[in-house]
Amino acid sequence: MLTPTLTVDLAAIVANWQSLRARFSGDECAAVVKADAYGMGMVPVATALANAGCHTFFVATAEEALALRAVLADVRILVLHGVQEGEEFAFAAHCIIPILNSREQLERWRPIAREHPHAVSALHLDTGMGRLGLQADEFAQLLTRDPQVLHECRVGLLMSHLACAPDTDHPMNGAQLQQFRNMTELAPNIPRSLCNSGGIFLGAPYHFNLARPGCSLFGIAPQASPENPMQQVATWRAPLLQIRTLEAAQTIGYGATANAPKGARIATVATGYADGYLRHLSNKGVGYIGDTKVPLIGRVTMDMLCFDVSGLPQTMLDNAEYITLLGDHDGIRVDDVANAADTIGYEILTRIGARVKREYRD
Amino acid sequence: MLTPTLTVDLAAIVANWQSLRARFSGDECAAVVKADAYGMGMVPVATALANAGCHTFFVATAEEALALRAVLADVRILVLHGVQEGEEFAFAAHCIIPILNSREQLERWRPIAREHPHAVSALHLDTGMGRLGLQADEFAQLLTRDPQVLHECRVGLLMSHLACAPDTDHPMNGAQLQQFRNMTELAPNIPRSLCNSGGIFLGAPYHFNLARPGCSLFGIAPQASPENPMQQVATWRAPLLQIRTLEAAQTIGYGATANAPKGARIATVATGYADGYLRHLSNKGVGYIGDTKVPLIGRVTMDMLCFDVSGLPQTMLDNAEYITLLGDHDGIRVDDVANAADTIGYEILTRIGARVKREYRD
Repeated sequence: MLTPTLTVDLAAIVANWQSLRARFSGDECAAVVKADAYGMGMVPVATALANAGCHTFFVATAEEALALRAVLADVRILVLHGVQEGEEFAFAAHCIIPILNSREQLERWRPIAREHPHAVSALHLDTGMGRLGLQADEFAQLLTRDPQVLHECRVGLLMSHLACAPDTDHPMNGAQLQQFRNMTELAPNIPRSLCNSGGIFLGAPYHFNLARPGCSLFGIAPQASPENPMQQVATWRAPLLQIRTLEAAQTIGYGATANAPKGARIATVATGYADGYLRHLSNKGVGYIGDTKVPLIGRVTMDMLCFDVSGLPQTMLDNAEYITLLGDHDGIRVDDVANAADTIGYEILTRIGARVKREYRD
Repeated sequence: MLTPTLTVDLAAIVANWQSLRARFSGDECAAVVKADAYGMGMVPVATALANAGCHTFFVATAEEALALRAVLADVRILVLHGVQEGEEFAFAAHCIIPILNSREQLERWRPIAREHPHAVSALHLDTGMGRLGLQADEFAQLLTRDPQVLHECRVGLLMSHLACAPDTDHPMNGAQLQQFRNMTELAPNIPRSLCNSGGIFLGAPYHFNLARPGCSLFGIAPQASPENPMQQVATWRAPLLQIRTLEAAQTIGYGATANAPKGARIATVATGYADGYLRHLSNKGVGYIGDTKVPLIGRVTMDMLCFDVSGLPQTMLDNAEYITLLGDHDGIRVDDVANAADTIGYEILTRIGARVKREYRD
């Protein structure tokens, strides 16, 4: 039976991680595998990376951390959302490291660190995202008032997050770097982490001890301008339900937004926005049959897409079983699809739905 | 532990189905529960509707049909994608009705219908969607050439799909109705179905025998213009991770797209586009704390959203645990959220991700 399929190239993920690690001048290159490894499958992805020597993983939530711990007993796991009320003992019991984001979270963690000699934490400093972490004055005042807090909470990593890393020339980058230096100088000797994927490409001054790339492991370009140095990871194919030749000129799809002439051949495939093929790709997406590009026609619907395959010879259509929606071809690389949908590759990858069967290639 | 939660009001779904059924002048009102019942959970939704007297369900794929059959033994289940190669025996064995979309599918089904006396089918006629189904000349020629085909395939329903039903005045509606009449007159005595949710509101001439509403069961307005007569079904809440007061004026989030003044209070919640909160809602979405509306600030990120909660008194913030992202308040009803994201409510509902816990209310 034909079924929509996402093929994840684990070897490409490992190669991307190795190339990021090679470019990184600090001590250790971790991997971010939150949101089910950006939709690619946390367990197989993290297992492949661990086998390749990756020892530290970042996830968003405690739930993700516990699922990862269940399959990887010996790696470091850090949780970006920090520790929420009620989660403290699960963190301690499973050696999961919360990235503490506020004074409140520090206070929540202090008794845990006291009771559990192996319980360690990281601390998030806000240098410009405005989202999570201690602000500059807050951090300075805390250390003055409570000089033992980092020691007592066993903070083993100071981290911050870049807001504009893919844009090399953005003034935020330098400002955040300076702020991060200023803040972390108040607590010397604690390892530091600032770089996401884009940050690695901003150069050695940004590197510090630990890098934590996410998006570029999965083929997303780390920087806006130059050629993408990463390998493509995801191939998404949808089975053809029907190919028809129009008896008369007519409109195609909801809202009658597209016109097709008499004799046009329209292929309908079994994938739609319910599977994460964004509706903003209506009349903009492209697919491939073999090596031939075919334009999406009409609106993206919940469970189906239509492509105009009039340009293909009938013999090719007779043998076609799938249209490729995402893969290593011009126009359907992850960043291409994101551009067409006016979003970023991360959203394309993380939203591929449950009806799409996952397949892994080593 | 606090966790992102989608609360689905099953009583509201049943009430919506009953109100659509009351408005429908034909014989039977079915329910469309494809794409996991538009993201609301196929099994609980279909079970609630079956208990309320709904006897016929539409799904997109064979896989969805088998999952539904496993919990509802006695209902009619129709599959919009029809029967694909290799699926024939599963359809026959589990009394699942394919909606045949092409001559090829009719030929695939004919031997099955011959061998299995209970195997019935439906037939899709294309009256203007251009997506699936037999076209007018194709259908007429088929009946001339092969007059036994509908009988031998045991076609028990002729259906077509409206392309522009929510837009009452669209000329496509009348054109499709006329085409449907013309085509189905070639095969009188077979029950007919044309209406989706919007179609029911186009009036009795559109009704025929069977209606198959989907979106409006889940609170989406069936028509573009007047007040929405449907009850809201989904309430989506995300836990607060942190509320902070800014030490200085600063930008918020990726790309530094939003500015907040010194003293602004920013709440960060644990939900992002990986959970289906569309990135197009960046700087546009709104949420509610209690009955107070708060604006989203900055870009939607993978796992987090920021809201400007400066307008709320501190006592209210002290007790707040959740922000409501979708629910029965101005600005966060499903169609409101869709408008803000420049899409349709269907995409909002079907994309709510697996990290969001489902809760059901009767």
